[in-house]
Amino acid sequence: MQTTLHQRRQKLAEIIDFPTVLWSGNSSPRNFPANTFPHRANSHFLYFAGIPLENAAIRLESGKLQLFIDDPHPSSALWHGETPTREEIAAKIGADEAKTMAELGNYLENAATVPVQDAATWTQQTQLLNRPVFPKNPRSGIDLELAKAIVSLRLTHDAAALVELRKAANVSVTAHKAGMAATSSAKLEAEVRAAMEAVIMGQNMTTAYTSIVTVHGEVLHNNHYYHSLQPGDLLLADVGAETQTGWAADITRTWPVSGKFSSTQRDIYDIVLAAHDACIQNIAPGVEYADIHLLAATTIAEGLVDLGILQGKPEDLVKMDLHALFFPHGIGHLLGLDVHDMEDLGDIAGYDQGRSRSSRFGLSYLRLNRPLRAGMLVTIEPGFYQVPAILNNPKTRDQYQYLVNWERLAQFADVRGIRIEDDVLVTELGSEVLTAALPNQASAVEDLVGC
Amino acid sequence: MQTTLHQRRQKLAEIIDFPTVLWSGNSSPRNFPANTFPHRANSHFLYFAGIPLENAAIRLESGKLQLFIDDPHPSSALWHGETPTREEIAAKIGADEAKTMAELGNYLENAATVPVQDAATWTQQTQLLNRPVFPKNPRSGIDLELAKAIVSLRLTHDAAALVELRKAANVSVTAHKAGMAATSSAKLEAEVRAAMEAVIMGQNMTTAYTSIVTVHGEVLHNNHYYHSLQPGDLLLADVGAETQTGWAADITRTWPVSGKFSSTQRDIYDIVLAAHDACIQNIAPGVEYADIHLLAATTIAEGLVDLGILQGKPEDLVKMDLHALFFPHGIGHLLGLDVHDMEDLGDIAGYDQGRSRSSRFGLSYLRLNRPLRAGMLVTIEPGFYQVPAILNNPKTRDQYQYLVNWERLAQFADVRGIRIEDDVLVTELGSEVLTAALPNQASAVEDLVGC
Repeated sequence: MQTTLHQRRQKLAEIIDFPTVLWSGNSSPRNFPANTFPHRANSHFLYFAGIPLENAAIRLESGKLQLFIDDPHPSSALWHGETPTREEIAAKIGADEAKTMAELGNYLENAATVPVQDAATWTQQTQLLNRPVFPKNPRSGIDLELAKAIVSLRLTHDAAALVELRKAANVSVTAHKAGMAATSSAKLEAEVRAAMEAVIMGQNMTTAYTSIVTVHGEVLHNNHYYHSLQPGDLLLADVGAETQTGWAADITRTWPVSGKFSSTQRDIYDIVLAAHDACIQNIAPGVEYADIHLLAATTIAEGLVDLGILQGKPEDLVKMDLHALFFPHGIGHLLGLDVHDMEDLGDIAGYDQGRSRSSRFGLSYLRLNRPLRAGMLVTIEPGFYQVPAILNNPKTRDQYQYLVNWERLAQFADVRGIRIEDDVLVTELGSEVLTAALPNQASAVEDLVGC
Repeated sequence: MQTTLHQRRQKLAEIIDFPTVLWSGNSSPRNFPANTFPHRANSHFLYFAGIPLENAAIRLESGKLQLFIDDPHPSSALWHGETPTREEIAAKIGADEAKTMAELGNYLENAATVPVQDAATWTQQTQLLNRPVFPKNPRSGIDLELAKAIVSLRLTHDAAALVELRKAANVSVTAHKAGMAATSSAKLEAEVRAAMEAVIMGQNMTTAYTSIVTVHGEVLHNNHYYHSLQPGDLLLADVGAETQTGWAADITRTWPVSGKFSSTQRDIYDIVLAAHDACIQNIAPGVEYADIHLLAATTIAEGLVDLGILQGKPEDLVKMDLHALFFPHGIGHLLGLDVHDMEDLGDIAGYDQGRSRSSRFGLSYLRLNRPLRAGMLVTIEPGFYQVPAILNNPKTRDQYQYLVNWERLAQFADVRGIRIEDDVLVTELGSEVLTAALPNQASAVEDLVGC
C-alpha cells in the first residue's frame, strides 16, 4: 500500500505546486447524535491515504504526506477497544509526519482542498481555510486546479486500485447469483435484496449505493422493495459492493421471476443484450464514450424496428431521440472509488475540457463524454423501459405518432424495465469485463434463477 | 392511523398553547450528492405525521395539522415513478390543510421546534426561524417547553405505537434465531451479521442502529466484523429492527460459537441471566428504574462473590462500584422511535425533572432515571465484560486488590463479554417482555445454535 500511496502523491506533485489538504470527514448522525450512519471517508482522502480514517486530514506537498489525527481518548478503550495510535497509523500509510488535528490550522496557508459531504466537516473546512468550502458550489481557483489534477490521476486506475475493484466486482457477481437463486422462494422484492446484500455484508463489505431490486424497473431510481413477485414479472436488480477501502462495483441484471422469459420479454432482452455486447466490443483506447452511447442507441433502435415497434431508419430515429423514449439514460459512467466516480466534482471528471452536457433529451443524461484511455473503468448499461410518464405523454404520442407502432408496442406490456450492466476496464488491447463471471445470456440467466 | 395522529396532537395541544413546527429532514449525502444514506425522518416528525416523508414539515396548533410539502417535480416520474401528491398525503395523515414548502415561512411566528440531525435541514430551520436551531445546543425557551411536552407524550406508548414496536420485536427475534442458526457454518462475524440483517431487510425493515456482532463483546461499541469465529468463542449480537414508520427493537444475545458453553462461560452467563430475570420481575409502575439498575448490580456482585471472583458483601461491593469493573454500563434505556428514545433531547427524556447524571463510575452511564409508568418501554440489558482498559489499569488493580480475587478471575479468561437484553413494556400489572419469543436460557440458546 505504501508504495502505491507514495506514487499517487508523487504524481500529484508533478501536476500542482501548491499544498493540498484533504479531510476524511466524520460520520453523519441518523436520528440522534450517537446513532450515526456508517462512516464513509471522503473518496479523495481515501485515494491518497488508503484507509478510511475518521476525523482526520492529510496534507500533501511535493510528494510528502503529513497526517493529522488525534490519538484515541483514553476512555474510548471501554467503548471502542484498543485502536491504533497516531504513530501506528502514520507508519501504516507511510506518512512523513504525524500531528494532532489541533495543529492542522498551522499548515493551511495557500492550501487547496475538496469539500467533503458531511456538514460537520465542511463547516470545519470553511472555518479553518477562512473561505467558503461548500460541497455544492462549483470549484474555483486552486481548488479547481486541484480538482483537475486529481481527476487526471483518478481517471485511470493503478494496479492497487484494480485489485480492490476486482474484489468488489467478484463479490457483486456472487451477490447477483444469490439474488437469482433466492427468487423462486421469495415473495417480496425485499427478500431478494436481502439475499444479495447478505453476500456483500458477509464479506465485510458495504453496498456502493442504495440497491435497486424491483419488478418495476421502469422506475429508474426505484428504492422501494415492497412489491410482491408475480410469475410473469421481470425482476431488475442493480446492486454493487464497495470494499473496505472504498472501491466500488456496479452490476445490473434483469431476470424472470418464474425462471423463464416470456417470448416478448426475451425479444426485448436480446435487444438490450445486443446493445450491451456491441458497446463492449467497441470499447478501446481513443474511442469516444459518447459514440459508444450512440452505438447503444442505434442498436436498440434497430432491434425495435426489427420487432415492428419503431418505424424508420435506425440512424434517423436516433437523431430524433426516438431511442430515448425507451432508453432515456446514458450508457454508463466512470467507476472507481465512487459508483459515479468523482461526481462530487460535478462534470470535471465526466466531461473532457471544453465539453458540456447536451440539451438533447437523448444525450443530456450522459454522465461521461471523453475519449477512452487504457486504465479507465466504465459501466456499460443499456436498458429498455416503458415509463408511463414518457409514453403516456400526449405530446410524445402526437409527436411520434407515425414512428412508433403503438399497437405493436402494446403487445410488449409485460416488459416494464430491462437493464444489463457490466463493469468494463479499458485496456491497451480493447477492454476487459471485470464482471464477466456473471452470465448475461438470457438462457444462462434462466438457469441461474432455476424454478 | 388518522385517529392515533389526531389523538397525539390533541394531547400536545392540552400541554402547550403555542404552535409547533416539525421538519422531517432530508437524506444525508454519502460520497457525492446523489449517493445518499437512506432517508430517516426525524422521530418527532414521525410521531405526529406517521409516515417518513422527506423534505416536509408539519405545523401543529390547537390540535390542527398543517402539512407543508412540495408536489413531486414533473420530471421526477422518470426517476422515481408516480409518487403521491400533496393532497393525497394530506388525506392519508388527516391534515387540515396542505401547502407548499415555500409557504412555510408565513406560518412560523412564535413557533417552537426541535432541531433535526441533518445539516441541510437545520440550516433551513435556523434561517426560517431566524434563531439558532442547532441539534447539539441545549433547548431553551419555547423549544424547551415543547421538548418537555413531547417527552411527556412519547414516554408512554399508545396502542398504535405498540403495534409497530411488537412488529420490530418479532422481526428482531427471528433475526437472532437466524444468527444463531448461521453460526456453525460461518467463518467470520460478518457472516452472522449478514444472516441476521438479511432477515430484517427481507421484511422491508432497517436496523435501528449499527449492529454489534462480535466475539469481542468486551468492546462495548464494537462495529467491526472481521474476526474469525473460533470454537471456544462467545459471540455477542446486539441487533434490532426498525419498522418503516420508525419504531425500534433492541435485542442482545450471547451464544457459544461451538454450540456449547464452557463451564466458566455458563457460570457467568447464568449470573447475567439471573440479573436480567431479577430486573424484569421487579419492573412495575412506580418502581424507580435506578433501583432496577442497582438490583442488577447487586445480583451480579452476588454471583461473582459466589464464584469467588469478588470478596465481600454484595451490597457493600456495589456501593464501592465493584460491579462496574465488570458491568460498566447502565441497565438499559427508553425504547421507542429511537433505540435510545428521545436521546436527541439530551437527558430531558431519560432523567426526571430535577435529576441529573451521577458522577459515580457505577452510575454515570445510566441513561434512564425515572419512576416507571405503565406504557413505558425499556430495555433490560445486564452484562459482564472483561475490559482490558479497566481490569489492567494499575490503579484499579491496586485499589481493589483485596476485593477481587485476580487469580480466580483468571480462570474465566474465556469469558470476554456477555450481555442479555430484552425489551420490556411496563404494564399496569407489572411488565410484559415484547421479545420473550427469543429464548435466553443457556441450554435453549445452545439448542438454537446447534452444532
